[in-house]
Amino acid sequence: MFAIAPANERPHLSREQERLIAGKAAWIFAMAKSGQSVCPTICITRKAWEAVKDAKPGSSLHTSWIGVLFKLVPKGMEPPALVVRTAARAHMAGLARVRGKIEAPKKESDAANTAKPLGRAIDRAFDSYLHGTPVWTMDTGRDLSLEQIVLVQAAVAEKPIAILTRDLSTGELGPFSTTDKSQLHPFKNPMAAKQLCRRMDGVAGAHMICLVAEQNGELLFLSARPAQASISANLEAAIDRVSNGDWTPRKAVSAIDPAQLPQVLHPRLSGAKRVAALASGLGVSPGAASGAIVFSSEDASRYRARGKDCILVSVETGPSDIEGMQAAAGILTARGGITSHAAVIARVTGKPCVASVRSLSIDVDLQKVQIGEREILAGAEITIDGSTGEVYAGALPLTQPHIGGNLRTLLDWADGSRTIAVRTNVETEEAAKVALSFGAEGIGLARSEHMFFSTERMVALRRMIFSQNDHDRKQALDGLVEYQADDYARLFSTMDGLPITVRLFDPPLHEFLPRTEDELEDTASSLGIDTKRLRNRLERMAEVNPMLGHRGCRLAISHPEILDMQIRALVAGARAAIESNDTNVNLEIMVPFVSSAREVHWVRNKILQLMERLSVNQTDSFKFSIGTMIELPRAALRAHEIAKHVDFFSFGTNDLTQTTFGISRDDAPAFLATYQRRGLYDADPFVTIDKNGVGELIEIAIRRGKEANPDLKIGICGEHAGDPESLKYFASLDVDYVSCSPFRLPIARLALAQPER
Amino acid sequence: MFAIAPANERPHLSREQERLIAGKAAWIFAMAKSGQSVCPTICITRKAWEAVKDAKPGSSLHTSWIGVLFKLVPKGMEPPALVVRTAARAHMAGLARVRGKIEAPKKESDAANTAKPLGRAIDRAFDSYLHGTPVWTMDTGRDLSLEQIVLVQAAVAEKPIAILTRDLSTGELGPFSTTDKSQLHPFKNPMAAKQLCRRMDGVAGAHMICLVAEQNGELLFLSARPAQASISANLEAAIDRVSNGDWTPRKAVSAIDPAQLPQVLHPRLSGAKRVAALASGLGVSPGAASGAIVFSSEDASRYRARGKDCILVSVETGPSDIEGMQAAAGILTARGGITSHAAVIARVTGKPCVASVRSLSIDVDLQKVQIGEREILAGAEITIDGSTGEVYAGALPLTQPHIGGNLRTLLDWADGSRTIAVRTNVETEEAAKVALSFGAEGIGLARSEHMFFSTERMVALRRMIFSQNDHDRKQALDGLVEYQADDYARLFSTMDGLPITVRLFDPPLHEFLPRTEDELEDTASSLGIDTKRLRNRLERMAEVNPMLGHRGCRLAISHPEILDMQIRALVAGARAAIESNDTNVNLEIMVPFVSSAREVHWVRNKILQLMERLSVNQTDSFKFSIGTMIELPRAALRAHEIAKHVDFFSFGTNDLTQTTFGISRDDAPAFLATYQRRGLYDADPFVTIDKNGVGELIEIAIRRGKEANPDLKIGICGEHAGDPESLKYFASLDVDYVSCSPFRLPIARLALAQPER
Repeated sequence: MFAIAPANERPHLSREQERLIAGKAAWIFAMAKSGQSVCPTICITRKAWEAVKDAKPGSSLHTSWIGVLFKLVPKGMEPPALVVRTAARAHMAGLARVRGKIEAPKKESDAANTAKPLGRAIDRAFDSYLHGTPVWTMDTGRDLSLEQIVLVQAAVAEKPIAILTRDLSTGELGPFSTTDKSQLHPFKNPMAAKQLCRRMDGVAGAHMICLVAEQNGELLFLSARPAQASISANLEAAIDRVSNGDWTPRKAVSAIDPAQLPQVLHPRLSGAKRVAALASGLGVSPGAASGAIVFSSEDASRYRARGKDCILVSVETGPSDIEGMQAAAGILTARGGITSHAAVIARVTGKPCVASVRSLSIDVDLQKVQIGEREILAGAEITIDGSTGEVYAGALPLTQPHIGGNLRTLLDWADGSRTIAVRTNVETEEAAKVALSFGAEGIGLARSEHMFFSTERMVALRRMIFSQNDHDRKQALDGLVEYQADDYARLFSTMDGLPITVRLFDPPLHEFLPRTEDELEDTASSLGIDTKRLRNRLERMAEVNPMLGHRGCRLAISHPEILDMQIRALVAGARAAIESNDTNVNLEIMVPFVSSAREVHWVRNKILQLMERLSVNQTDSFKFSIGTMIELPRAALRAHEIAKHVDFFSFGTNDLTQTTFGISRDDAPAFLATYQRRGLYDADPFVTIDKNGVGELIEIAIRRGKEANPDLKIGICGEHAGDPESLKYFASLDVDYVSCSPFRLPIARLALAQPER
Repeated sequence: MFAIAPANERPHLSREQERLIAGKAAWIFAMAKSGQSVCPTICITRKAWEAVKDAKPGSSLHTSWIGVLFKLVPKGMEPPALVVRTAARAHMAGLARVRGKIEAPKKESDAANTAKPLGRAIDRAFDSYLHGTPVWTMDTGRDLSLEQIVLVQAAVAEKPIAILTRDLSTGELGPFSTTDKSQLHPFKNPMAAKQLCRRMDGVAGAHMICLVAEQNGELLFLSARPAQASISANLEAAIDRVSNGDWTPRKAVSAIDPAQLPQVLHPRLSGAKRVAALASGLGVSPGAASGAIVFSSEDASRYRARGKDCILVSVETGPSDIEGMQAAAGILTARGGITSHAAVIARVTGKPCVASVRSLSIDVDLQKVQIGEREILAGAEITIDGSTGEVYAGALPLTQPHIGGNLRTLLDWADGSRTIAVRTNVETEEAAKVALSFGAEGIGLARSEHMFFSTERMVALRRMIFSQNDHDRKQALDGLVEYQADDYARLFSTMDGLPITVRLFDPPLHEFLPRTEDELEDTASSLGIDTKRLRNRLERMAEVNPMLGHRGCRLAISHPEILDMQIRALVAGARAAIESNDTNVNLEIMVPFVSSAREVHWVRNKILQLMERLSVNQTDSFKFSIGTMIELPRAALRAHEIAKHVDFFSFGTNDLTQTTFGISRDDAPAFLATYQRRGLYDADPFVTIDKNGVGELIEIAIRRGKEANPDLKIGICGEHAGDPESLKYFASLDVDYVSCSPFRLPIARLALAQPER
């Protein structure tokens, strides 16, 4: 028991006493110590209180308690009425509310008497701790009940006022009203109030809600608690604290939670092509999103697993929808307002959300919705604008966000203390430009199969696969080379000299084959073969488990003509870029889905032979190297053998997670929610890397790989490379770069600059 | 240069000289040393021959050569005509044929003169070595050409006779004719010939073809080479050598190749239900087989991958069909005879084969065959009898082989020196009985889902999955418990007290759901629901990669009612067996497809709760334990955590191979043949365990598991447990048992008794 803000002096605590205070008590002490006028406050620990209650009046312990209580009495004044507060380390449900205007003990013997007002209030405050989260925990082995404290404070005459030290949306310095958040509170002495905010901000380094009172013309500080602010506000505050000298840039970098960044990286509806909205509701979480209509968390997860956007459409959401909301690109509800479950969760997760669309009705059984006048089937695309509350049919063009202002400043500081490079996963010129503006230092994963995503290329690819003679096949291959060469030339020119990792054709061939009856007939007639025979061949190519099938380097080995085509296209693209734009090309060819050194050796030899046949020599303007994805457990285990044949490893953490766990990402939604609900997984292993299992394989591979080839470069190119939690882990490994989608680059830049916590 | 069978004395070689001889030379020396009359023989190494050729007549080297040549001359006789032979360590194509009746050198200077007959013949013999398989090998770093030798032998007057020391089919002691193999050769002194055979057999410990000559009433041994014999012959010979004192039982056990055993374990057509044959041809490899008609290696491999039998049907086979022949249960060809490619490979691999069926015609394009009068589609089942040459429509009942005679003797000896137990993978009473007769010491894998393989059970299972209310579900579950309980009771009674590992429901649920339109309608009407709605639900249950989907313990966790049903059925079965047959039940419940300790912990707790609810106590007559499959890389890596919650590990090497390599066994045939042809795999990793990758995970798991739980029992239950090569590897690990299919038990018993070579 001791005074954290004595009435007549600056506080002074021993190190042991400082260790005992937390929460409100810590803020009160810090403010008092900083010179702020603070309402007199003392604190007592549970252990001390139990002892004091047992002590006889007149005993030295009892007398000490009286002494501490007297620290609440300003010199020459009567003991004031009292207020009792709990002061927990973190917010806990069920704690006793503040009990105010308790009369000061009349006699010394009343000071610890639980039948009297003060003693009763203190007892109740301690008792309320038991209603909170478990007090004794097996984990720490500490009896946390010993750390509980209760505050006794002098009551103030005027009604206390709650103010925000900063605006929760913009980060501007207060004092702002907590009821009408963007208004400054009308203090008699606004200067003193601003100073108090600045002081509190400096002391806490966080947005705070302070309880203050104007008393006798003086602004008294009573208590404070932290407030959740938007990322914009946190950024503004962080930059302000640095310019104010409270923080170093490094401190600012470490203070911002990278997981919050997606919230300032919202896409917006592009102004150009506005169409009429189907309906409108409340825009409750900003940003625009397009995607297929889904009705359940499971379906939303399936879409995400396939890399496709969806909009979760629901009458209203509840706790069971959280996985779906995280998986969806946006949320649309028929009911609920700005404080509805959907709105709150959408803002927390940074998803656009439109709520309260009255004209929306849902028929889950028939898998369709009515929006305004229109009936739309599940799976069809819609667009929502969470800023305006409007809903559109189809996928409207979105304007992507850019990095500027405070975020740019912070990321520049972050780059200063980051040692691991950030690259991006893109294939197109446009995406590469966005990535560069977001700070990409190279391309870590260009999925070459994406070069075939257009109808005419698809047809050419199919002609190659089914060609009946060498002449047809050669013609089809030459056509494919031409198409891709142009794409590569533009990609190389955009990245001018930065490293570009192109992964060889990876997916199972049959993914590119005709599916619908129409496509089948078109393909058959373009090949001049019988539809029935084509169907027969297709049926024989279908796979039971395509994820573990005839894909990756297995394709290059069984169909060397595809490898040949790809290398020719890369070389032609590089030459075109070098000749027409005077750019440098730094090409890294990546062999996917390798499980043994012999495979890499075989493919590498083929590539080198092709390069020789194409008269490619390594020059300053055209460098190339050959590496491999490590995405199968066996590749990680045999890394020492594989490393001898390659210049780099890039960990494909998605597939490595699939094979290590034996979980198909596409099929996981059927049980993942159950698993998380039953506590079997702490996190979705496809979002946050599994350090224990997948991580051990990564660590084994890095160690064995570098032992065999000390020059080996190491990258990470799975989607985990955009997850803050996973990035912290990758930063602890001996990796040279991570590669993520363009919009995740800011997250990676920030997370990799933060010291391991 | 030295005499290995001098004319006038017993041979004596230095250790260095003994090291130089191999092949024929070694057999000749051994026979001479054993006291057999051997035609005088000397040998010369390449190195010595080069030096002798260069040496001047009269030089000491030249003189030595003359001296060695004189060892060919019997005391007091003229130098005989000569014969020159190569003597390679193993058979090599292109070696010089024996050159006989070369006149002995007339003068000393002719002895090494390559223009003269003897010198020329020796030179040609050495030259011929260069045509064989590569002589210098990078692997050993030795110059093997230095080890080459040439033999010079006295010619005999009579034409040499080739005899078999033992019959190649039965193993009976010879001398048998090599042309009419089951006839004893009519020697003038049959006793001497039999003695020679016995002597050769003792010296070589293998079936040999000996070259002998009767000369002046004496039986002279000239040369010998090994002959390939059937496994029956090898068994007979091995048992005979032991009874004769040439071998110890341990030597016999180590001499038989376990890979040969399947050849004596042929199924036969059961006599009972004979139907008319469709056609007949030549029975060129014994045994009967049923299976679906396939036309290509790839299709055959697909069938095998799915655990289904097929018959490879072809006009005639060639080297590119070998994978298919190995994968098929039997081979049927339209052309070719007893020495055709199909016949030879079929006998080598122990597959039944019918060849030369004239009335067979194949239309690969239309995927059908004509056999006799009948047209049959690919995929339809036929039966072939490789002993009689007949072909039948449909799958006829087969009589399974049993173990008796020499094989039983050998396996009994093997069991005496085996420390690792052998169990079997069966689910039915009938299979369990076969397995017991084949030496099973328990069941290592009873796939509980096989209990649902009947129409009425399937319907009950579907009713449970789709039941709309608790009452329906309970009724369906109770029905399923009843069905299984009876099966389990009979299985437990059959195995009376031997350990029985029952794996909980493993495959994805949708495998058990209706597929055809008829099944769909039946199921919908039995459930009283709309067909369209049922189809909708089914589509949503379909999986992209079922192998990595909602299966294994994930089912038990998301559908605890299935686990509940299974435990109830096991307990009811055990109680019925104990009560009605007074048997003991030793039940091991195995949790499949685990990737984390929490999963095992969860399922184990559920099982223990159920056991308590069912009032099950461990007693002498009813013991149960709980273990897990280790079949995912993450399970192997986290073995130390998992081991704390289980009594045993059983390695599911099939799935562990699939996930470690990232290869779906079903889909592997599309590239596996290419991989083997390009030398990327030494062996199919689904046949022979991959020691380097999958093996490392197994070793990690055993080490970590036993460290955490020293009482942990370790088993192997993948199909690798029936592969001799893999068994040798498993024998080197700290495992308690292996478990394979019943017909592989003899292989496992023998392989596990053989010392690591």
